[in-house]
Order: sequence, then C-alpha cells, then structure tokens
Amino acid sequence: MPNVETISSLGENESLKRTISRLNISDHALVGPGDDSAVIKAPDGRFVVTTDTLVEGHDFKLDWSTGYDLGWKAVASNIADVAAMGAVPTALVVAVTAPGHTEVSWLEAFADGLRDACTQLAPGCGVVGGDLAASDQVLISVAAHGSLEGREPVLRTGAKVGDILAVAGTLGRGAAGLALLQSGNTDAISAYDDWVNVQRRPQPPIYAGVEAAVAGATAMLDLSDGLAKDAARIAKASEVTLQINPQMLQGFEAVVEEAARAIDANAADWVIGGGEDHSLLATFPSDAVLPRAFKAIGVVLPLGPAPVMLGANPLPEKGWDSVTG
Amino acid sequence: MPNVETISSLGENESLKRTISRLNISDHALVGPGDDSAVIKAPDGRFVVTTDTLVEGHDFKLDWSTGYDLGWKAVASNIADVAAMGAVPTALVVAVTAPGHTEVSWLEAFADGLRDACTQLAPGCGVVGGDLAASDQVLISVAAHGSLEGREPVLRTGAKVGDILAVAGTLGRGAAGLALLQSGNTDAISAYDDWVNVQRRPQPPIYAGVEAAVAGATAMLDLSDGLAKDAARIAKASEVTLQINPQMLQGFEAVVEEAARAIDANAADWVIGGGEDHSLLATFPSDAVLPRAFKAIGVVLPLGPAPVMLGANPLPEKGWDSVTG
Repeated sequence: MPNVETISSLGENESLKRTISRLNISDHALVGPGDDSAVIKAPDGRFVVTTDTLVEGHDFKLDWSTGYDLGWKAVASNIADVAAMGAVPTALVVAVTAPGHTEVSWLEAFADGLRDACTQLAPGCGVVGGDLAASDQVLISVAAHGSLEGREPVLRTGAKVGDILAVAGTLGRGAAGLALLQSGNTDAISAYDDWVNVQRRPQPPIYAGVEAAVAGATAMLDLSDGLAKDAARIAKASEVTLQINPQMLQGFEAVVEEAARAIDANAADWVIGGGEDHSLLATFPSDAVLPRAFKAIGVVLPLGPAPVMLGANPLPEKGWDSVTG
Repeated sequence: MPNVETISSLGENESLKRTISRLNISDHALVGPGDDSAVIKAPDGRFVVTTDTLVEGHDFKLDWSTGYDLGWKAVASNIADVAAMGAVPTALVVAVTAPGHTEVSWLEAFADGLRDACTQLAPGCGVVGGDLAASDQVLISVAAHGSLEGREPVLRTGAKVGDILAVAGTLGRGAAGLALLQSGNTDAISAYDDWVNVQRRPQPPIYAGVEAAVAGATAMLDLSDGLAKDAARIAKASEVTLQINPQMLQGFEAVVEEAARAIDANAADWVIGGGEDHSLLATFPSDAVLPRAFKAIGVVLPLGPAPVMLGANPLPEKGWDSVTG
C-alpha cells in the first residue's frame, strides 16, 4: 500500500502550507496569511464580524459530504450572516480540527471548496488566516468579516408595522436534501440530487444582502434554522408579529413536492421548518421597490398573540437547535 | 440528586443567553452580540484579525483547567497574536463546542474567564459574538481583532542585520507548569503553583506590543510554540540569523530552576523550548530605546548556517506542533 500523507505525518506547518497555497487572495487583505495576524481593509471605519462552527456528526457526516463540500458550506453559511447585515463579505479566518489520520488530500479539497465558494458567491472575499489542530472529530469554525461600505447595518430590530416580509433565495431545498440522505433511499437521492447538492453546497444569495440594504430593508437575517424559527427572531427583536401568507409559500413547496412524495415526507414542513438554504429574510417599507431577488411572502402586523402567524394560525417555532438538534 | 442544568437541557439559545449576560461589552462595538453579525469600529480604516483553537486532550485537560481558566487562556493566547502586530485588541468572537452533558455552570465560569482576561489584559476589548454547539470534545475557537491606530503592522519579515533581539514577558513558566502537572507530583505542584497558574492563565504583556511598535520594532511575534521554534520563524521570514546570548537567558532559567530540580527536569529546556507564556519576541534597530517591558537577549546576524544560534551553536527548532504534539 502506498504511503498516504496524513496531517499528522506532515505536521501542522506543512499541512497548512499545502492548504494555503490553494486559496484565493482576498482583495481586501493588506497582510494575508503567514504572520501572527492578517490586516484587512475597513474603508468606512467599521467592519462586520460573525462566527459559526460546523461539527461532524451534528452538522454534517463525512459519508455524505466531501472535504470540498464542507469547505464550500463553511464559507456559504458564514458569509450569509455577513450579507444579512447588508454587508459585502471581505475576509475569512478558518479554524479546522481533524483526526491526525485525516488525509492531506481531504484538507486540500476542503481548501478548494473554501476558494470556490468565495470566488463564486462573494468575489473579492478570501481566507486570510487559519489554524489547524488535531481532534477526535472534524470541526470547522469560521469567522467571517464584511464591509458596510458606508451604509447602516440592517439589524433584526427594525421591522415596522405595515412593512412587507420578503425572502431572497430558496426555501426547503436544504431540508429536502438532508431528508433524502437520511432516508437512505438511493433511487430518490439520485433522482433529486439537486436538493442533496443544496444541502452539501448551499447557494445563498449573498449579493441580495446589499441590494436589500440599498432598497431600504428595515430588518434582515439569514435563514439558517428554518423560516418559522428565524422569522420569530425578527418578530421578537422588533416587537411585532410577522404574518406569512401561506399561498406565497406554494411555489417553494411545489419545487420539492415530488421529492417529498418519493420518501413520504411533507414539503410544507421542509419549507417552513427546514434550515440550511441560508436564504435572506427581510422586511421592507410598504412603498419600497423590492430588489429582484426578493419575493414578498407576508406582512408585518402589530405584536399579536404569536410572533409568527401562517395565515390566521400561530406558527410554532420549529427549527434546528445546534445543541439539542 | 438535584437537577443539574446542562447545555443540552437548556438548549443553545438559553445557554448562550446565560453566557452573554456575564461578558463585558467591547468599547469598540457599534453592534454587539445578538444579531447575525457584530459591527466593530476600525478608526484607521483597517483591522487586524487572527484565529486560534484550543482542543481538549491536546491543548488542555479538563482535570487540570477549570472553565474559568480556559476562558482566560483562550483570550490571552489570541490577543497575544494581535499584540504581536503592534495592535490594540478590540473585539473577539468565540465559538465553543462541548458535550451536551456539560453543565451550564462550566459555561458561565468560562464566560467569566473571557471577561476577566479581557478587562485585565486588554481593557476595552470584549466578546462581540459567539457560537455554541454540541461535540464529543470541548473545543474553543477564537477570532481576535485589533486596531493599529494608524501605525504600520509589525511583521515577521522586517528584522535587519545589526538589530537587537528582545523579549517582553516571561519564558519557560508555562512549560514549567505543564511539566509539573504532567509529573503528578502533588507536593511540587502546590509548591510551584505560580508556574502552574501561568500554564492555566497566561499573562502575556499585551500593552508591550504597542510599545514595541511605537519604539520602532522591525519584527515581532508571539512566543506560543517556544523560543527556539518561534525565533526561527522570524529568522526565516526575515532571511537573517538570530543569535541568542545564553547568558541573557540565565535570569529566566533561575526563576524556574527550583521547580525543575523538584521534578528532575531541565530549566533551560523550558526556557528555550517551552511555549504558552505568550510573551513577545521582537527585533529593534540598534539605536532604539527598548520599551521597559523588553529585555535584550541577542542580536540579528546575516543569514548563517542555522536560523537561530545559541551563542556559537545552532539551536535546533524544538517546540510544539499543534497536530503532532
């Protein structure tokens, strides 16, 4: 058997060197990887920062996702939080821990995923620093940064009664992909691999974050835990009730309906409760011109008996908890 | 038995809420924790960023360090990398993963450690965002940010022939503490608990980073992997040889000599090879006035046969590799 290079046989420095050489350079870096810290431009005198971790066994399975997929997903899920402030993603730092027997080729594929997600979802953004250590499980922790370009950040607190509730991006596809993988139904998995691929490599509409800010969005967040749970976050932070029009969700449901039937699942549950498409949910003044990426799905009402209503009914806050699952 | 609250019984949101309420607020935050991202001031139009991860079993043992210790250490080790650029630490994001059965009181102590390390080592700096997830091991991943306040960053590449090599902070104490804990010699551990406490709660001279930059430091880094290995990093990046005067290390050795004798260890090995004091190693022009925190330990020579010399002898690059140990 040929010698397989692992991160413990190569060590931290050499493994990191192999990885870093595959990354794209951030357009915003004044000092890139290789020193104690990187130095990043913040032209308007502020920067946006967020962090999120992917944990093997909880957020992904190595059987279902390649190193490339996980690099992609780590970028996509983090820069969606930057976009949700109305900011342009500029720079990432990435900490990876993995068992010592992990092959360096896995790490190289991971780096390729980081690079391609940056260049395709947020051109100009790149990885400017990282850390590699040994652990029992694979964990990927990213801190993502962005520039508001002089605009005010779009918070969760600003939704006003009378605003339009709108979503940019897809709903329920990531959840469909996860359910397909969990079903073990190989025919269904290959028939609906588009949704499996959304789960593996989400395609959040990053550019739409800035568009929303420019169009006057009053509140915005990244749909990572599902429409029901995340809408409730805006509602509570803004002290309003969000009323979703169920008819406006029918288009999203129709897309994943066939896959749902194939594995006896419920498309509406995916659309309402499923996370991981990392789409953007925002509120806009009623006279705003919605950016093309956004589709109106409801309205903002005065604070009522429930934070979120689906038509006339309170919507339970189903969704994903990263600790309890 | 009374009900013990764990992070899985409380869930991510409630556990995070408990933790966040114990933290200090960063003086530099325009938007703090609770939204998709935080917004941080960057008055000179740039920011410094670095990341580092602590892994249970590799970087610490829960038997040897409390939650408080680990919060402290996570801050100290990361802001030392910010200080090593000549920057003032401003804001941290902290991702923690821990088994679901971890008690919330551990997480609260961890938050107290984060807060106290910020307020004592880098007043004004605070945690502005975080993430909590379930995993098999405890992992703590921090991204730390800083402000250069208009100064140029001090890189590893700038050491010039004829410069003075100097260190701010202690050497070998963290290694002494680790060796004491590993010895299992409870008498020695309690007799030399000062060094054990350096291992648990390092005291890097954060303020000295800015002082070095102001005094004209030509290169600087944070001594996290030991003098031998980290000095070689400056030497290679600057294409010079660093010559350490062994007599200048005697004071550092004397401090831990008694502890070394108690467990049959070698004080010089700790001073030369031990990391985790997170002191700052810098080079200064020969006519610079060294800031009071810095002690000269050597000189910068033209690139010779080895990156680092201890007197007339090449110094092997012993030190810590976060993957291979």
